Amino acid sequence: MIDMTLLLEEKSGEPLYFQLYQHIKKDIIRGKLVAKTRLPSIRALSSHLHISRNTVELAYHQLIAEGYVQSRPRSGLYVIELELEKLPAPYSRRRKPFEASKQDSAAVQYDFRYGDVDVAHFPLATWRKLSNQCLQPEQVELFSYGDPQGEPGLRVEIAKYLYDSRGVNCSPDQIIIGAGIQYLLSLLSGLMRTANNSIAMEEPGYDGVRTIFQHNGFNTHPIPLDKDGLNIHKLYESKSRIVYITPSHQFPYGMVMPFSKRMQLLKWAADQDGIIIEDDYDSEFRYVGKPIPSLQGLDTNHSTVYLGTFSKCLLPSLRIAYMVLPPALLELHNKQGYQLYDQTVSWFHQKTLELFMSNGHWEAHIRKMRNVYHRKQSTLIEAIRELMGEQATVIGQDAGLHILLRVHNGMDESELIKAAEQEGVKVYAVSPFWAQRTKAEASMVQIGFGGLSNEDIVMGVHLLHRAWLYPVNTSP
Amino acid sequence: MIDMTLLLEEKSGEPLYFQLYQHIKKDIIRGKLVAKTRLPSIRALSSHLHISRNTVELAYHQLIAEGYVQSRPRSGLYVIELELEKLPAPYSRRRKPFEASKQDSAAVQYDFRYGDVDVAHFPLATWRKLSNQCLQPEQVELFSYGDPQGEPGLRVEIAKYLYDSRGVNCSPDQIIIGAGIQYLLSLLSGLMRTANNSIAMEEPGYDGVRTIFQHNGFNTHPIPLDKDGLNIHKLYESKSRIVYITPSHQFPYGMVMPFSKRMQLLKWAADQDGIIIEDDYDSEFRYVGKPIPSLQGLDTNHSTVYLGTFSKCLLPSLRIAYMVLPPALLELHNKQGYQLYDQTVSWFHQKTLELFMSNGHWEAHIRKMRNVYHRKQSTLIEAIRELMGEQATVIGQDAGLHILLRVHNGMDESELIKAAEQEGVKVYAVSPFWAQRTKAEASMVQIGFGGLSNEDIVMGVHLLHRAWLYPVNTSP
Repeated sequence: MIDMTLLLEEKSGEPLYFQLYQHIKKDIIRGKLVAKTRLPSIRALSSHLHISRNTVELAYHQLIAEGYVQSRPRSGLYVIELELEKLPAPYSRRRKPFEASKQDSAAVQYDFRYGDVDVAHFPLATWRKLSNQCLQPEQVELFSYGDPQGEPGLRVEIAKYLYDSRGVNCSPDQIIIGAGIQYLLSLLSGLMRTANNSIAMEEPGYDGVRTIFQHNGFNTHPIPLDKDGLNIHKLYESKSRIVYITPSHQFPYGMVMPFSKRMQLLKWAADQDGIIIEDDYDSEFRYVGKPIPSLQGLDTNHSTVYLGTFSKCLLPSLRIAYMVLPPALLELHNKQGYQLYDQTVSWFHQKTLELFMSNGHWEAHIRKMRNVYHRKQSTLIEAIRELMGEQATVIGQDAGLHILLRVHNGMDESELIKAAEQEGVKVYAVSPFWAQRTKAEASMVQIGFGGLSNEDIVMGVHLLHRAWLYPVNTSP
Repeated sequence: MIDMTLLLEEKSGEPLYFQLYQHIKKDIIRGKLVAKTRLPSIRALSSHLHISRNTVELAYHQLIAEGYVQSRPRSGLYVIELELEKLPAPYSRRRKPFEASKQDSAAVQYDFRYGDVDVAHFPLATWRKLSNQCLQPEQVELFSYGDPQGEPGLRVEIAKYLYDSRGVNCSPDQIIIGAGIQYLLSLLSGLMRTANNSIAMEEPGYDGVRTIFQHNGFNTHPIPLDKDGLNIHKLYESKSRIVYITPSHQFPYGMVMPFSKRMQLLKWAADQDGIIIEDDYDSEFRYVGKPIPSLQGLDTNHSTVYLGTFSKCLLPSLRIAYMVLPPALLELHNKQGYQLYDQTVSWFHQKTLELFMSNGHWEAHIRKMRNVYHRKQSTLIEAIRELMGEQATVIGQDAGLHILLRVHNGMDESELIKAAEQEGVKVYAVSPFWAQRTKAEASMVQIGFGGLSNEDIVMGVHLLHRAWLYPVNTSP
């Protein structure tokens, strides 16, 4: 058993978890804790020492990462047989199997990539069963191109879901399914080209969308953000008649556009005979307060194009997104040869998803994942607050699968990324989200948390802390 | 047993099969052939009567279609229990299950739609097994967006295949995978926009591609066809610097561009600093002579963009195609923000296909399907020749999954389609393939044969014959 007389000094300058980790490690190396000893549970030790469970968790993970203790599933942590000469180097660069093909990430141990989703909670067995139901010879649509707009049955399910969850008012005929929001925006660009070649966009905003508009011949107008989202006054000034917007969770800042501003935006559209492109990309994952209905649902003027995706809340690898066209654009779509565009999403995935939705798995999955991601987000933010305190500011935590982090250590974006990389952690640049790069925030990174486990999030933050704020060599 | 003393009159004006059919039907109705009698095999009856097996087959299928006899698997054809009042109407509009959702095709019994592929010979069990291997939690790429250009392993397999089968010279880095040739041409349009806004296209050509170019802001120049394909002289005159072309199987006419003309086209590209877009959409299915190497493989000047698809030779519903960029366009692609485009094809399907190819299933499948489709094409053409003789001309039979049929009965395209529809058969318009509609052939339809069984092809042609050339009421 660990000697519980150890006294952790709150003000020693070293974080609590680190003192605890060092204490246990010393005991293992000195032989006071012999091989195969079971460590006390996180709960027991935290209550015994009157410290937070998170602190104990961090210390334990550090010990695991460095190879002093081993986790046995459903049993606990055990001290390993120690052969001192074989002791692993701290933070050994264990390559995960899926990184084998990625040359530039050989050393990455914790990847805070935005866009990855949770591996552990996806109902693979259910999906496999439904998939196999669709992969049968009597499913003769497997042998055809399918409905150009997307499978009618899936469009019915999406229309129902959007009405219930986001207040979107549409018939299945207004829905166009496509292989990603980028593809659908490309299609939409063609439809809108007649009227106007200028699109207003939030600044900063998603570069992957800005590029699509620009490649399709549009000029993009950056519109600055207020605390509650797009500056409407600047939108009027831009003279654009089209605006692309992410009201549920502004990308990347994460603010939620309040009801009053939504009404102003709809008024703008009515005034200007404008088009609002509402990208509701991760609206499923809202953790604070009640969801505000979609702009599309509030829009009595039929000027809103609504977009959503299954990449965040299901699997990005399936490539399924959808777009709800207002009647005027739908009419153009049906007249101008767009019925010649083959559907871009696998029939097989569409059909599987239709069954997944109609059998109730979809709703259950969203509910579960909201909790899973909320827990991950809390873990991330708590770990950051505990370790970095006032030295970092978390931004955009009302929703979604990423946060922004402003770090107050004097490093700029590329230095932050590089220092993290040297500790085996990948965080991402935010400057590309600014159309005017010079206006980008200087010391900020994007941290996605969807694809990492709670344990990895904690360990990752620990390493980030070491990289940015505690750059002292900790070898014993 | 059927009374074999019946004498078929070669010159009675009614086709042989029809006399046979009427004879047997009469015997059933009059009770000479009682319920549960087994009809002689096609082989036995044809040799007994000294008529072709095809003729007997036609007669039998007619009897099946009208419900007088029933097929028992691996046993033969049996006379049904006849309840005269319940006798089915001739050509009863049996709805196939997959047509339930298609309002406009409720009455369609035989659909010669181009684009459908063979249901019976797809190795579903193998595909399902490989699919399920990819749908496992350790396949963590399932939970990510994947490589924007497409899975590296699949690109390696495609590069190998293209080199071996089409003489295409490329590295996997030059390959971009995408959800259909239309999507890839849209992407390509963005890359080419800088240089020139005019694209030369075969006239007639595929309207689904012409529309893509036009929606992407290009002018398309129709170039007339010679017997061996594109008129090169007119191409020079057009002043276009880009040409889109289908040399392996001109769409829709089906001619194969000979080697000499390919060299002329490559010379044009060298002269004009031009770009050749080679769409090799169904080159796998060539039935006559040896394949001619791709333009890309002959092109020492690196001016060819090569496109291929898995829609024809595997499953259209998976939505997998690819494009091989020459070095100059690849460089543009890598510089101009195209790395921000998410991949549009399901990772899951890409991975399954990679396994399918690397395990040798792909080569075996192509070999098998070449025979299957060749047999279907022969069945189709023989049935047309036997029934329609000089009254119809078959066009484009060297390759592919469709033919064109010129019908010499005085009907125009829409009359041909309508008359066929009234017999429950769907054939398709060719006039949309002409940019200049007024120049379209007047009395021609497109007939795809990929999705129908040999039996259905024969029955379909029989009905087409009745619709177009034998419009006499045949009720007993």
